[in-house]
Amino acid sequence: MKKLDGLKISLCQMKVVPGRPDINCQFIIREIASAKKRGIDIIVFPEMCTTGYLIGDKFEEDSFIDDVLRRNKEIVDATSIGITAIFGTVSRTNAKGEDGRPRIHNSAVIAAGGQILSINIKSLQPNYRIFNDDKHFYSLRKIAEEQDQLYRQSDGRTGRLCANLNDYLNPIPIKSSVGIVKIGVILCEDMWHQDYAFNPTKTLARKGANLIFNISASPWTWQKNRKRHQVVKDLLSECHVPFVYVNNTGAQNTGKNIIVFDGSSTIYNENGEILLEVDPYVDESMDFEFTPDANPVDKRELDDTRELYAAMVCATKSMAPDGVNVFVGLSGGIDSATTAAHLVDVLGKSRVTAINMPMGNLNSAKTQRIAREVAKNLGIKYEVIPITEIVEAISKATGVMPSTLAYENVQARARMEILAAYAQKTGAYFVCNSNKVEVAFGYGTMYGDIAGFYAPLGDLVKREVRLIANHLNNSRFRRKIIPMECINQTPTAELSKGQKDPFDYGDLNRRGYHDEMVRAYTEFRRNPEWILEMYINGTLETHLKLETGTLKALFPNTVDFVEDLKHWWIKFQNSFFKRVQCPPIPIFSKRAFGRDIEESLMTPFFSQKFLTLEKAVISPSRIVVFGSGCNPPAIHHRIICETISRECDLLIITPSGIRKDKPESAFIENSHRKIMTLLTFGDLGNTMFDLSDLDENVFTPTHLLYEKYRKQFPLAEIFFLVGGDLIRGGRSGNSEIQKSWVKGQEIWNGLNYILISHPDCNIDPGDAPPHSEILSVRNLKGRSTLIRERVLENRPISDLVMPEIEEYILCKKLYK
Amino acid sequence: MKKLDGLKISLCQMKVVPGRPDINCQFIIREIASAKKRGIDIIVFPEMCTTGYLIGDKFEEDSFIDDVLRRNKEIVDATSIGITAIFGTVSRTNAKGEDGRPRIHNSAVIAAGGQILSINIKSLQPNYRIFNDDKHFYSLRKIAEEQDQLYRQSDGRTGRLCANLNDYLNPIPIKSSVGIVKIGVILCEDMWHQDYAFNPTKTLARKGANLIFNISASPWTWQKNRKRHQVVKDLLSECHVPFVYVNNTGAQNTGKNIIVFDGSSTIYNENGEILLEVDPYVDESMDFEFTPDANPVDKRELDDTRELYAAMVCATKSMAPDGVNVFVGLSGGIDSATTAAHLVDVLGKSRVTAINMPMGNLNSAKTQRIAREVAKNLGIKYEVIPITEIVEAISKATGVMPSTLAYENVQARARMEILAAYAQKTGAYFVCNSNKVEVAFGYGTMYGDIAGFYAPLGDLVKREVRLIANHLNNSRFRRKIIPMECINQTPTAELSKGQKDPFDYGDLNRRGYHDEMVRAYTEFRRNPEWILEMYINGTLETHLKLETGTLKALFPNTVDFVEDLKHWWIKFQNSFFKRVQCPPIPIFSKRAFGRDIEESLMTPFFSQKFLTLEKAVISPSRIVVFGSGCNPPAIHHRIICETISRECDLLIITPSGIRKDKPESAFIENSHRKIMTLLTFGDLGNTMFDLSDLDENVFTPTHLLYEKYRKQFPLAEIFFLVGGDLIRGGRSGNSEIQKSWVKGQEIWNGLNYILISHPDCNIDPGDAPPHSEILSVRNLKGRSTLIRERVLENRPISDLVMPEIEEYILCKKLYK
Repeated sequence: MKKLDGLKISLCQMKVVPGRPDINCQFIIREIASAKKRGIDIIVFPEMCTTGYLIGDKFEEDSFIDDVLRRNKEIVDATSIGITAIFGTVSRTNAKGEDGRPRIHNSAVIAAGGQILSINIKSLQPNYRIFNDDKHFYSLRKIAEEQDQLYRQSDGRTGRLCANLNDYLNPIPIKSSVGIVKIGVILCEDMWHQDYAFNPTKTLARKGANLIFNISASPWTWQKNRKRHQVVKDLLSECHVPFVYVNNTGAQNTGKNIIVFDGSSTIYNENGEILLEVDPYVDESMDFEFTPDANPVDKRELDDTRELYAAMVCATKSMAPDGVNVFVGLSGGIDSATTAAHLVDVLGKSRVTAINMPMGNLNSAKTQRIAREVAKNLGIKYEVIPITEIVEAISKATGVMPSTLAYENVQARARMEILAAYAQKTGAYFVCNSNKVEVAFGYGTMYGDIAGFYAPLGDLVKREVRLIANHLNNSRFRRKIIPMECINQTPTAELSKGQKDPFDYGDLNRRGYHDEMVRAYTEFRRNPEWILEMYINGTLETHLKLETGTLKALFPNTVDFVEDLKHWWIKFQNSFFKRVQCPPIPIFSKRAFGRDIEESLMTPFFSQKFLTLEKAVISPSRIVVFGSGCNPPAIHHRIICETISRECDLLIITPSGIRKDKPESAFIENSHRKIMTLLTFGDLGNTMFDLSDLDENVFTPTHLLYEKYRKQFPLAEIFFLVGGDLIRGGRSGNSEIQKSWVKGQEIWNGLNYILISHPDCNIDPGDAPPHSEILSVRNLKGRSTLIRERVLENRPISDLVMPEIEEYILCKKLYK
Repeated sequence: MKKLDGLKISLCQMKVVPGRPDINCQFIIREIASAKKRGIDIIVFPEMCTTGYLIGDKFEEDSFIDDVLRRNKEIVDATSIGITAIFGTVSRTNAKGEDGRPRIHNSAVIAAGGQILSINIKSLQPNYRIFNDDKHFYSLRKIAEEQDQLYRQSDGRTGRLCANLNDYLNPIPIKSSVGIVKIGVILCEDMWHQDYAFNPTKTLARKGANLIFNISASPWTWQKNRKRHQVVKDLLSECHVPFVYVNNTGAQNTGKNIIVFDGSSTIYNENGEILLEVDPYVDESMDFEFTPDANPVDKRELDDTRELYAAMVCATKSMAPDGVNVFVGLSGGIDSATTAAHLVDVLGKSRVTAINMPMGNLNSAKTQRIAREVAKNLGIKYEVIPITEIVEAISKATGVMPSTLAYENVQARARMEILAAYAQKTGAYFVCNSNKVEVAFGYGTMYGDIAGFYAPLGDLVKREVRLIANHLNNSRFRRKIIPMECINQTPTAELSKGQKDPFDYGDLNRRGYHDEMVRAYTEFRRNPEWILEMYINGTLETHLKLETGTLKALFPNTVDFVEDLKHWWIKFQNSFFKRVQCPPIPIFSKRAFGRDIEESLMTPFFSQKFLTLEKAVISPSRIVVFGSGCNPPAIHHRIICETISRECDLLIITPSGIRKDKPESAFIENSHRKIMTLLTFGDLGNTMFDLSDLDENVFTPTHLLYEKYRKQFPLAEIFFLVGGDLIRGGRSGNSEIQKSWVKGQEIWNGLNYILISHPDCNIDPGDAPPHSEILSVRNLKGRSTLIRERVLENRPISDLVMPEIEEYILCKKLYK
């Protein structure tokens, strides 16, 4: 880092205004002038700081791009005063993009002395979640690919002079007060290279960059900053070059989603240690001078709830600009109370009005009291406006009668009428109080409670709403603005007598099943097949981090569980028609409804495997358990399972663990056995895997397996698949099963068996256990023992195992 | 084509059900069996026919993909009966995608005899409009790029054995009743290669494919089939190989947009002539046998309105499945009448109910009569339900008073209440009648008339609504279901007395300005800068295909025009908050609101150039006209214009055309001069181009230029920029201007000039015309003549022209 001693850089973590190059460029030019006065060598601005990053098809508006290009020039001119500036913006080249329109690039301009030194084009472009860089921008990677292709086409020959991305990535030498410094400038995703075929940072470091700048427009998401520190650390352990990350602040949006940028710009030394970390959401330039004795600082303390709330504040601020007041329907429930308190915290109490809208006698004295109390605690204007007369007028006009679902929805829409009319009368907005669980299952009324300018809680499950309520009380207002009885009460929409929300939301300290179901479907891309499988094998509570006993308390029996699962999956899929028309939702989680989760109006679908599992678990069915060692799984295993899976309702494949008394049989690690099992049998229908022996490194004897499956499938007839050799001598009590297996004679008499008979091992019916069937297989050459022997002797095994397994064994050097 | 004689193929233009692999695969397997019975060699299914193409993040649900992979296997098994099948589906490989998730591919599986012969991965992936293939699928192109990269990394050396996409594209030999046939199988975008660096069809033809199959999921859009025929013709003029295009039918959606697939599968001979064309929207298998005497058939007659209407039918059917009834608010206006007639045409009269919802005495007798008449003509149930009492109840509860905008919106929302309650009471839907102009400008009430399950007219401007109304009368019902007085009446929302829609919608035969403004902003990605520039230069009516005089009739003066332009641009941008929550809209045009147009909530932006033009056109300003030959434009032209553009309000650059009396001066084509002008001056601020001389190949003398600009900028002070040599001898009436220019003495005395003075041409003030200023420029070496001379002599010109111009001249071999 000696080369950099005395170099002064400034990180301008600006709040980019999307779609407003006029405002952004004016700010940039001012900051350049001001940095020069402070003696800065290089000032760095974030990615797409002239235009904003999430501006949709504005990038396709030629006149808009013309305007930005002119302003780029003005920024370059501003460096004439003798400073280097790096800023993210659009550039355009004289060729067509893949949509047939002018080709534009997501670029970093490096300018000094009024001249452009380089225009660096983004190499790796994200196309997941809300990102679709490849829609708008032609990447450096494609340029390299195209050049290669153009050359080879015109030349006709191949294999010469070919180029790829790495040839197009080069450090730029710039003059500074400490002499020439070679800088590598990359954009955002370029540093998150792990899943790409290229690593721009590494290439630039290899080509001699003294310093890498990454200019980003990188949204805040849950625990992302932790991940970034780790990614940089890993990168630099290989590249050993100081690394500067500059990110913007402010919120941008896709209409359906509000995306928050936290800044948190950071300077890392060549070991990935932090030299400077700019505070999140602070939009200013921060100066730094490289010195020989620059010591790493401690990472900023990260508190998940605090970070989450900071993101909420940023998003809400962007949606309710200065001068706009907001109405909130305050019911006395936790969602509306939390929304109201949050709005007051962000906008100030003068800008928030609460309206309580009771219907006849449906609203309890308790919720009415809480609503009044919350408003009073917040010091905001509070009005009570009954909806009864509006509901009656609608009922009279349409014949919708009380005690019907339609009548409940009329009530919800009547409340919207009041909020909408009030808001419009005064030029204000009204807010939507829906949380993520309600949005997920369509638990709300379109044009009713699912209405408003913005749904600040739309990406929080109920437990998170409670955490935020608590945070508002304890850390923001530092008093009980929201009474604990509000936070803890059982949620209800109060649209009919005795109504309660049909969800297990958990509470402040305990996760709720339906909360976590929503997270599984959204953040973790699971579906009911997975949930049902985990339920059956008894790990669902562990996977969803639910308290033990949660499911048993909710669903006394399996039929109830499955019915609830199907019901809400159908609701989850069908209610997308409501989400199509729902208000903007912020992104806080790993995946939020809106643009972040891309959905389509489709009829609900249950996978074949779900239906198989459902049948096996709730109705009388025939289940076969295949519990072989499968070490490794061979073609004959596959043939047997294929045959069986067609003839039973469910085949359970459960590779047996290593017996504590035979540790020598642990030829390879369990993880390899898991992968090979899935490779061999993964595409079979009617099949479920029970990998608990491998996962927990235990050996479950057959009688315990039986007990387990008996419990999981109480209505099933359960068969165990065993080789004919294991029953030899059975008539005289001398079979392997009877002699060596735990509780041998008991299971011999008590369990059902399918016995595999093949030319090398014919079964004498007299040896068979009392409850057994025989499965005859023609060709069964090759036991696992034989395969292992051959591998040891470097002989081919392709006649014995599936091709994927052969490749895996060779590649991982197993059984050696 | 001899090789193919006797080959029997079947094109299965199936209606794919998105998100339902169970239904789709069952259908596919049945069709394979049936084709075998008919003696078919190869049966071909469309792209993504197992899953559907537009299913959003379903592609990220692992269990869903598992299910599809199992079903792929079932389809492959189905070919065991002795047939080749080609079908589009997902495949998965053992590597990570760029989002860190399992890597899946948009693939064509080629299977025969129960075995997979090949899995062909899509090469070119679209990422524009509603397409985002790169989000979900890893393309063959990326695989090739990655392999190249992996090789080069591990090897360390470069320049050897490198590969690109073309090396990965290979024909597959398949057995058929006529022997081995080598088929090339590509997917959808692979054939639309024009804007990509690769051409898969060409590569496959070069490698000896006897027949190319393109399996597609290609949405219908305006005139796309015409374009496809041309693209294939161009492709095959180079590749000379028979080409089979198989596309699916049915509608799929993104929630915000409904996308229609018309099928229209086609077989082309090696000259791109059509051998077979399957009817659009017909979901069946069509057989074809290659014969030596197969004659081309005529292209299907294409009627734009009929095609458009067929797309409407397909979209509406998909949104209102069997058994669902629909309510429509019937006001007597054309939008609701057209919607009602269309719904009856698609769903039948028993499924449609019309409700007229008058408010006090605001609704005219005429519209009420028309509404009644339309319902009667259609033979549907019709009810009149006044909204007055509901509106009064809301007004009473909220204090919103009559004669306010808020009161108008209360009325619109009250109508929604009635439709919503009625629909829900009977398990029906209610429809949204908004057209594209209303959606564009937010001319409607959220949760009011912008509500409903679907907006069938949401992608039609008003003229198109009228065309469809007419089409319904003339071609569908064959009688005047919708009275002509309804089609022709002036649109109004009837929310207040005497209210009229503030738009020029045109009529059946005449385009309306605001209709076309919406099309310019959406389909053609224009903005007000472009509209204003075209208005100023008098070509706006031509560009928008408006009748001459339309604008003058609408806007007596320029100030009115500009105000209207700004007003609706602000509305257009700001009303996106309404579109975020609007109902699903079909895609019929080149770009529809919804996902097709990607927007963001942003404050309205006017480009610098718009503001410059606005100022120049509506307030006193200083305009300079630069009318040089610029043949070619040189550095000194650029320097002069840069200087001037900073000192005036508007610089007009208008390269002069070739004088009819000096045709010898036409050194190069006008198109080259246009491009070089834009390359040289395009990034200047405060600048407008008038290229009419070049466009129309005329020469406009200065006095006519003056008249033109006088009219365009009535308040401006207009200067003409001229070289000092042109005024030499002016004191004695002997200057070039006075002697040779048309009306020389008149313009000498009457116009304002800026005279360019430089070291080689000092100006004698006594020679200057009466109204003139002098601009001194230091360095002005090189006239266009000198540049042309040097080019002729192959001498360098880099000191005289901008680098872009030098490159352009050399590349295009100009001035030789």
